[in-house]
Amino acid sequence: MTSDKPSKTYDIELIPGDGIGTEVVKAVMPLVRTVADQHGFEFETTRRDWGTEYYLNHGEMMPGDGLDRLTDADSIFLGAVGHPDVPDHVTLHGLLLPIRKGFDQYVCKRPNVLFEGIESPLRGYESGDIDFVVYRENTEGEYADLGGREHRGLAHETAIQSALFTRRGTERIIRAAFEAAAERERHLTSITKSNAQAYSMVFWDDIVAEVSEEYPGVTVERLLVDAASMDLIRRPHEFDVLVASNLFGDILTDIGAQITGSMGLAPSGNIHPGDEYPSMFEPVHGSAPDIVGKGVANPLATVLSWSMLFEDLGETDAADALWDVVTDQLADDAAPRTPDLGGDANTQTVVGDLSSRL
Amino acid sequence: MTSDKPSKTYDIELIPGDGIGTEVVKAVMPLVRTVADQHGFEFETTRRDWGTEYYLNHGEMMPGDGLDRLTDADSIFLGAVGHPDVPDHVTLHGLLLPIRKGFDQYVCKRPNVLFEGIESPLRGYESGDIDFVVYRENTEGEYADLGGREHRGLAHETAIQSALFTRRGTERIIRAAFEAAAERERHLTSITKSNAQAYSMVFWDDIVAEVSEEYPGVTVERLLVDAASMDLIRRPHEFDVLVASNLFGDILTDIGAQITGSMGLAPSGNIHPGDEYPSMFEPVHGSAPDIVGKGVANPLATVLSWSMLFEDLGETDAADALWDVVTDQLADDAAPRTPDLGGDANTQTVVGDLSSRL
Ligand SMILES: CC(C)[C@H](C(=O)O)[C@@H](O)C(=O)O
Ligand SMILES: CC(C)[C@H](C(=O)O)[C@@H](O)C(=O)O
Repeated sequence: MTSDKPSKTYDIELIPGDGIGTEVVKAVMPLVRTVADQHGFEFETTRRDWGTEYYLNHGEMMPGDGLDRLTDADSIFLGAVGHPDVPDHVTLHGLLLPIRKGFDQYVCKRPNVLFEGIESPLRGYESGDIDFVVYRENTEGEYADLGGREHRGLAHETAIQSALFTRRGTERIIRAAFEAAAERERHLTSITKSNAQAYSMVFWDDIVAEVSEEYPGVTVERLLVDAASMDLIRRPHEFDVLVASNLFGDILTDIGAQITGSMGLAPSGNIHPGDEYPSMFEPVHGSAPDIVGKGVANPLATVLSWSMLFEDLGETDAADALWDVVTDQLADDAAPRTPDLGGDANTQTVVGDLSSRL
Repeated sequence: MTSDKPSKTYDIELIPGDGIGTEVVKAVMPLVRTVADQHGFEFETTRRDWGTEYYLNHGEMMPGDGLDRLTDADSIFLGAVGHPDVPDHVTLHGLLLPIRKGFDQYVCKRPNVLFEGIESPLRGYESGDIDFVVYRENTEGEYADLGGREHRGLAHETAIQSALFTRRGTERIIRAAFEAAAERERHLTSITKSNAQAYSMVFWDDIVAEVSEEYPGVTVERLLVDAASMDLIRRPHEFDVLVASNLFGDILTDIGAQITGSMGLAPSGNIHPGDEYPSMFEPVHGSAPDIVGKGVANPLATVLSWSMLFEDLGETDAADALWDVVTDQLADDAAPRTPDLGGDANTQTVVGDLSSRL
């Protein structure tokens, strides 16, 4: 589906954010524009310089009407948020989490693939052996802003942190995961901690049981989060789709990134499946203060996240083109690699090589 | 310190529990008695047939006055709890968790060692490379029985699960971990999720900062639980002592067991450091319904847990003897091994071989 004249223009909001977020977001732009062009569409970007620098100047991570400014976009791309000078709960609650929640991006979709050319830290695992996707609840659960702290500094000081699970919030992520499983290998693993958390997690189990009746073709496995963490190391090849709460999904996707070779390869989508709000795509790696400014951040997670963004817009061919060019490069021994993958190439060189493969 | 006449008699409560718990607890008794004898003490055991079978007959996992019956013991040994026919939150909240909480066993101590002769699933890791201990809070946090579920079955059904962190509960586990670090490599890693859980985890961080002033010789690293899960795969050799909440400790110790070769090797202590209540020791593996009755359960985690029990009683030499005999056996290629370690020996044979090495 290539044509000479762009048929469609999308409106994309870019939030490069902090640290290497700004580096990778910038570096991949020429590549993603070329791919769009090759597939008959283009996009206009609005760059928002929100993040920690903005916070240090304005006392907030984004303007008060930040969400309003983003809301009409077709999609949002975020680099990374977080800075050593400001506590994480400030930076995250000021930008990333409000967007996930405010735009009801309730599906956090995180594929974990062991690409050809990448060595897993797990003995005996070769490329192709690991390929699963995590559907993580992204708007409530253990990340709810619910709790408090009383009697500060006194002997009876107490903090309470409450996790909130609504039927609507729980059903919809579980249903999204069943849908995904039905399209893939028809095997869904639901992660809980029902043996210790008898309110939230037994509720979750009940909803899995209910929704599973709509998907008789999908086999369902229930796994406790501690066992699942082990099993992602012991038998990652047996997973297809995992569905988990906000916190458990967070932990399991980091394990997933690690066993598939590098945090620098893990893409993600914060998806609002309806039309009301834009979705947001971001690499899973953070702002990586230790390598900021060195120009060696791995841009591949960002490219793969753009692939997910294109997919979400319905631009499947462009999405595939981006995914394939990464796959290609990784499979090529002679291709440049950033230090996290054992090479000594910089970000620019890796992106340049990707472009040459289009 | 061996003598002909036993100088001391300890009173130990045995709760074999469910599944392979009963098998391993029984199998190791002759070995641990011999070791006690060799080191000049003995112990009397009271066996409590509590667990799921008891529940199916009596409607409760242990008698109503169960804790009272145990309270005067010098120590408690538990096999495993859990049965496929009864939901986990019933079996656990009926026996294991009430003992941990009721006897204020606030230190859950879990060593993770890659023994000589054991292959880690992580590429490039050899015996001796992994040796850390997790101090897990064991009486509150995310395991608090605090929450509820309302509007059952309706569209607005909601479940809330609250985590409770008290200053007393948090300070004492953190202090115990600092003490341990001061005795080991003087490096403590505190696990939180402060970027998303701004009530409980920021409180935890504050207490770590306070207590750390008492231990200027111990370096403190703060790590988010998602990053820690990755780092236990990426750089496990760099950890010394980890301190974590109940839930995070649960997850990280299962990862720890996995990367050190087998759940069948992971011991644990639920320790009440004062004199008021008995402590309880148990292998980390559960009741393992899949191998029950086959006689092939790995007894080594149970032997190592007895070593921890002896240590806790102050019987250091006997503790070392048990630990060493396991180390010895594992290092010997020709020694029998259970199937989880790649062998085909049964439980009895492995214990017999241990005895022959004393
Ligand atoms: C930065 C942090 C709040 C975030 C999360 O926990 O969701 C990150 O770890 C992620 O996985 O996207
Ligand atoms: C059985 C379960 C309640 C328990 C826990 O979560 O504490 C177990 O996983 C453990 O680690 O001892």
